[in-house]
Amino acid sequence: MQQQVSTDSQYQTLQSMSVPKLREVIRGADYQGHTAGLASGRLQANLAIMPQQYALDFMRFCQRNPKPCPLVGVSDTGNPNMFTLGRDLDVRRDAPGYHVYRDGKLTDTLTDITALWSDDLVAFALGCSFTFEHALIAAGINIRNVAENTTVSMFRTSLATVPAGPFSGGMVVSMRPIHRSALELTTQICSRYPLAHGAPVHSGDPAEIGIANIARPDWGDPTSIEADEVPVFWACGVTPQAVLEQARLPLCITHKPGSMLITDIDEQAQVPVLAHG
Amino acid sequence: MQQQVSTDSQYQTLQSMSVPKLREVIRGADYQGHTAGLASGRLQANLAIMPQQYALDFMRFCQRNPKPCPLVGVSDTGNPNMFTLGRDLDVRRDAPGYHVYRDGKLTDTLTDITALWSDDLVAFALGCSFTFEHALIAAGINIRNVAENTTVSMFRTSLATVPAGPFSGGMVVSMRPIHRSALELTTQICSRYPLAHGAPVHSGDPAEIGIANIARPDWGDPTSIEADEVPVFWACGVTPQAVLEQARLPLCITHKPGSMLITDIDEQAQVPVLAHG
Repeated sequence: MQQQVSTDSQYQTLQSMSVPKLREVIRGADYQGHTAGLASGRLQANLAIMPQQYALDFMRFCQRNPKPCPLVGVSDTGNPNMFTLGRDLDVRRDAPGYHVYRDGKLTDTLTDITALWSDDLVAFALGCSFTFEHALIAAGINIRNVAENTTVSMFRTSLATVPAGPFSGGMVVSMRPIHRSALELTTQICSRYPLAHGAPVHSGDPAEIGIANIARPDWGDPTSIEADEVPVFWACGVTPQAVLEQARLPLCITHKPGSMLITDIDEQAQVPVLAHG
Repeated sequence: MQQQVSTDSQYQTLQSMSVPKLREVIRGADYQGHTAGLASGRLQANLAIMPQQYALDFMRFCQRNPKPCPLVGVSDTGNPNMFTLGRDLDVRRDAPGYHVYRDGKLTDTLTDITALWSDDLVAFALGCSFTFEHALIAAGINIRNVAENTTVSMFRTSLATVPAGPFSGGMVVSMRPIHRSALELTTQICSRYPLAHGAPVHSGDPAEIGIANIARPDWGDPTSIEADEVPVFWACGVTPQAVLEQARLPLCITHKPGSMLITDIDEQAQVPVLAHG
């Protein structure tokens, strides 16, 4: 997910910061905004934190649905230090914001969840769309939501996920209009990033995946589609959020949409584990 | 892992069988041999079955070490039907042979583990080298262990795995000599198969990864290396077997080496889940 790119001077200062410095600022709650465009070249991740008793089923859900839920890290139970993703990475403080859900209802928005942490919690990090957007832009493909600083259009679909324990529900997709001439290249490039939702799940007629009105997204901003463009749909990181809400866990904590966890991992890494290629 | 390719008439009959038919034969314990060359084009998998209390840590181990442990399926707890990998796939009977370990010691070799199954067990399927060997051969690259019907050379190394709970230990690699001119193509092709150990972890001097004598593998047959060839090393599915033995679980069941679980999944699938692309 993305939010309006702020143009204030704090954001511009953050853009040039190293990851350790940026982490220090975010950890001090001195920045609570979105992370698009920050820590260039580093993998950013969606966060989902839950009691251990649900962790095995959630991990199964991710294994069975790797396009919407590309698993890039799992903490040890009770250990907030995700050592596979960063040399000094504390999941309780290193996202700029958190959403706290109790029984499937959003009850709090916080900048630090240290007070809620317990020996029983497991944190999951899931890859996000920033990675493939950067790769497409680097290849000269226009990505409207980035170019126009809007939140990408997201839709509920009739595409099913494969259930695991309490976790089930429809796949949520993001839509980006792609020029006809760039469709094949787009799929080729995205296929190289299985940890960032991989190749698109659909392109063309939105009705084929149960989207009634392409002009009215369920989340995000509407996106214009030009005559020479085709709507292309990617599995979206909002899927696990919707699935988690629907599962009504007694406690579940996610990052605040758009305010991702910034890792030390190179966005190009095939294996998202420190000191591994 | 591979074993000598049998040339008897039963094996030749099996080679031309459809997956459902082949599964019926194996399920009836009418074939107890290796599966190399059978069910052409279908994904084959290593098996690891263990009590649920170890499953979350083992899944973490696989997430942290995807090259030696590429997870392609996880059963629901107590459910022997791995529905993500086959329409009628029973992990208790569908590998031609099983090894049963108690406290890290091999205690039984069976063709059917139904009597040992319980509501508490979780089955894991991990991708195997057959997939990338097929892709390399299809690209015209000579794979000596296949061409000469020998078991690939495997070695313990100084490459560490990232631990999770009771699971830790060095990476085991397989070695295949590759002609100098084909090194780059080999890496390119294998990179496309992250669920089959991915790109090689090393090529060239064996000493750099702690292998003292390339002529004396720890498992499998010795392999000659010609003057115009380079030894190339892949993360190997024996790694989880060694790690599981070392963890000394009260009960752990694996496939018999070389006698893999044959799935309904296309070897080329990016997502190893039925009805998913």
